[in-house]
Amino acid sequence: MADITLVGAGLVGALEALYLSRLGLKVDVYERRSDIRKAKLYEGRSINLALSDRGWAALEEVGLAEEVRKIAIPMYKRTMHSSEGQLSYQAYGKESQAIYSVSRGKLNLLLIEAADSAQNTRFFFEHRCEAVDLQSKTLKFSNPQNQEISHNYQRLIGSDGAFSAIRQALMFQDRFNFQQFYIEHGYKELTIPPAPDGGFLMEKETLHIWPRGSFMLIALPNPDATFTCTLFFPFEGPVSFEQLKTEQQIRDFFNQTFPDVVPLIPDLVEQYQRNPSSSLVTVRCKPWNYKDEVLVLGDAAHAIVPFYGQGMNAGFEDCRLLHHMLNQRKHQWEGLFPAYAEWRQPDGVAISELALRNFIEMRDRTADPSFLLQKKIEARFAERHPNKWLPLYSMVTFSHTPYSEALAKGEAQEAIMQNIMQLPDIENRWDSPEIEHAILQQLPS
Amino acid sequence: MADITLVGAGLVGALEALYLSRLGLKVDVYERRSDIRKAKLYEGRSINLALSDRGWAALEEVGLAEEVRKIAIPMYKRTMHSSEGQLSYQAYGKESQAIYSVSRGKLNLLLIEAADSAQNTRFFFEHRCEAVDLQSKTLKFSNPQNQEISHNYQRLIGSDGAFSAIRQALMFQDRFNFQQFYIEHGYKELTIPPAPDGGFLMEKETLHIWPRGSFMLIALPNPDATFTCTLFFPFEGPVSFEQLKTEQQIRDFFNQTFPDVVPLIPDLVEQYQRNPSSSLVTVRCKPWNYKDEVLVLGDAAHAIVPFYGQGMNAGFEDCRLLHHMLNQRKHQWEGLFPAYAEWRQPDGVAISELALRNFIEMRDRTADPSFLLQKKIEARFAERHPNKWLPLYSMVTFSHTPYSEALAKGEAQEAIMQNIMQLPDIENRWDSPEIEHAILQQLPS
Repeated sequence: MADITLVGAGLVGALEALYLSRLGLKVDVYERRSDIRKAKLYEGRSINLALSDRGWAALEEVGLAEEVRKIAIPMYKRTMHSSEGQLSYQAYGKESQAIYSVSRGKLNLLLIEAADSAQNTRFFFEHRCEAVDLQSKTLKFSNPQNQEISHNYQRLIGSDGAFSAIRQALMFQDRFNFQQFYIEHGYKELTIPPAPDGGFLMEKETLHIWPRGSFMLIALPNPDATFTCTLFFPFEGPVSFEQLKTEQQIRDFFNQTFPDVVPLIPDLVEQYQRNPSSSLVTVRCKPWNYKDEVLVLGDAAHAIVPFYGQGMNAGFEDCRLLHHMLNQRKHQWEGLFPAYAEWRQPDGVAISELALRNFIEMRDRTADPSFLLQKKIEARFAERHPNKWLPLYSMVTFSHTPYSEALAKGEAQEAIMQNIMQLPDIENRWDSPEIEHAILQQLPS
Repeated sequence: MADITLVGAGLVGALEALYLSRLGLKVDVYERRSDIRKAKLYEGRSINLALSDRGWAALEEVGLAEEVRKIAIPMYKRTMHSSEGQLSYQAYGKESQAIYSVSRGKLNLLLIEAADSAQNTRFFFEHRCEAVDLQSKTLKFSNPQNQEISHNYQRLIGSDGAFSAIRQALMFQDRFNFQQFYIEHGYKELTIPPAPDGGFLMEKETLHIWPRGSFMLIALPNPDATFTCTLFFPFEGPVSFEQLKTEQQIRDFFNQTFPDVVPLIPDLVEQYQRNPSSSLVTVRCKPWNYKDEVLVLGDAAHAIVPFYGQGMNAGFEDCRLLHHMLNQRKHQWEGLFPAYAEWRQPDGVAISELALRNFIEMRDRTADPSFLLQKKIEARFAERHPNKWLPLYSMVTFSHTPYSEALAKGEAQEAIMQNIMQLPDIENRWDSPEIEHAILQQLPS
């Protein structure tokens, strides 16, 4: 029997399989989709990925960082596009700091190849988990031939995503707390093609945002010189997917709202009508484990909205921290799942909350000059007092500060900055010693 | 094919079956448990029931109120027992107003008998719902012989409780919001026997409470002169189920904490050790329907904690309001489920919130003389200005005010009363014209 059975070979499952295979354990991995190495079309979610420090740290540990870096495009700043087509900018961090646009499919492929090369790891694709029996430790799968396959597990890890079958089994345990909720907005993807000369039609190494208050469009660069755009938009209401149906409605809306995007996408209306409008779910649950026997990781434990670019990063960090704890315990698995689950769960809740809040920042506040000034003041202060202030975005994206700590510190920072922004003549004095002093005074000693 | 298929013949399901049978519709009712009319032991939840106006209104409509009244014991007030055995009192409403202790099993029996007497209603007991296919409108049941029974439905109502199989099927619909969470407290039931002369060992027509801050014991009278006591108690922590294991620990705890209860229950320790500690779940979800085809009612839609005595009452009101809406629509079912679900859902959330808050009121605030004074002031003011003030408890228990409206009004009242309670010498002036005037001034004009 395998030492560890994994259900789900998406990004997090494949990384976890790789971590486990590095330990020489016998690992069986079951995946609902077909083998990405053989498939013509990638069946997974296509929403853009932004790899940042937490993700990189895990990739470093399993020795894949260098290879991934070859397919990653750094984005050093946000570029905001106004309705008049004017651009403004906000650096993500210090000069060399960036988040990285990567292809979900290619990254998944690299991880599966690396994990599958280990001798004791077996992958079973096109196996859909149909039932989990926690008492008899049995999994039932179906394959495309509709055969029923039974599998006994010793320890089970569910990395099977937001609608996890493994978590579903935990739900019937007494005192299992669970929440799934959808925001009012959905998303639709659109593609900006390469320029006639094969180059990029907009600046490459940046994340483009068209903030429009209650909704937004973003665009991330791909290695083939396309941009994947995502429109985050209400499902219902006066300005919503529901209201944009006809060619004329779609064309009018884009002309008015994103005029600088229209000339970049010749088949805009066709893409809009062809591509689905998908929903955005948040999942919170507790506990993440069943006894010493079952654990959920990644989206299965904490599906979040994509607005902090942390979904994959949080899942990768799950794996890194789980194995860090296993190391600390000198590779004794007894008690690992309960201890890890209890310790890490608040960070899953925190990043789901941060991700929800960042939607408002991206779609609304980044269009506000006063917000951009606030961020500039914070960045300057952080530069001068790196031990006293790390901006929230940097804590989440460029540090390994636990998400729950980042959330609490970020709230304290925001309270201070609200006071600072009300000081008279802040627009001109923002870089003065008085402002620096005013921030210092408000910090806890 | 049946016009309506009901899954779950507990209190709400049986009442709904009765409502439907009164319309002459063909109704099939499936129930997991065995037929209560044949069973020796009632298998349902035993936690005490307190029937109040919303429940009575539905029973009146289906013509069962008179029969239920024969097995119901009115409770006109709360009787609080201090650690020293001293008693204090709080009336529930005006003089004749009471909530009614009823036996869950007997009430369920009456409802099933009445519904089953209709010609077009069929009951299928010992049928456990194993699968729901919303697309093909098929239910799969298993019976004690482990046979699989398939059933096609036209319209489906899920009244199958907090862990509803019907709701489970809704969960996989896109944009279905769902939450289940457990409070830190569980409950354990204990029984106070009749007196040697066959009478009651404590005052009969009252709800007894032993409020102890972070936990409490309550007792409700039964027709056989017993009281069903329920200890609401933390599962874990310094004073908790976890800490009370040995005979000595249990005896010491009750002697110190509920000294006046100890002599009433000779086999206290045995009961404590034999009876389970059960958990308390809250369920919120949205939407309550799938298209025009499926609807959840009662606990399946809004399981709540028992502290407002509204679980059954809210479920009965669900049925009453559903049929009220059906009448308004001149018995056209098209569009009924979506319209009802959308309209009623906020009231399900509101009563779940009210129920959580009332735990704190019962276990903690009822022991506070200042809280009892506040309630006396409210009652007096309500008596003088019945059009301006109906206390929150009365709105929930003795009126048909939508729960969401009661919650909002109750919060406004509490804000006013917090101000009033801070007036100097309120203990002596509470019944004065100045206080009456002070309240009047704070009311919205």
